[in-house]
Amino acid sequence: MPEFHAQLRVRLRPGVLDPAGQAVAHSLKDLGFAAREVAVGKLLELTLPAPTAEAAEAEVRRMAAELLVNPVLEDFELEISAR
Amino acid sequence: MPEFHAQLRVRLRPGVLDPAGQAVAHSLKDLGFAAREVAVGKLLELTLPAPTAEAAEAEVRRMAAELLVNPVLEDFELEISAR
Repeated sequence: MPEFHAQLRVRLRPGVLDPAGQAVAHSLKDLGFAAREVAVGKLLELTLPAPTAEAAEAEVRRMAAELLVNPVLEDFELEISAR
Repeated sequence: MPEFHAQLRVRLRPGVLDPAGQAVAHSLKDLGFAAREVAVGKLLELTLPAPTAEAAEAEVRRMAAELLVNPVLEDFELEISAR
């Protein structure tokens, strides 16, 4: 069966408190950098076997729903590529 | 001054232990998913003012070197886009 690489970019939803992002924003400011809207999210990557890219995407969306992403707090983008 | 959006995708270097990735891999397996090479990294996003995209990229690379990325353990990809 072919294998696919999946990359999930998981972000906190707008309005959800992001203490890690705030800490980074403060540290950047202390260092003299002019950054704003700093956000810290997760980058999840994995390899999976699937008959087609469409099937791989559906499978990773199931993984997201069951484990990887908390839909109350998080949003995600998914990119599937052939290995 | 124009503003740019920066996205840093930070990954652990090959060979660096990834306990978060291992935990996700085990949980996916317990749920019946066939995933391998699971890796957990960071997605850092921010907005910054800069005269050009090239200047924005240089500035974010300085932020990475001074604060955002640990070059001993981590690698990163950077994407700059106009806002």
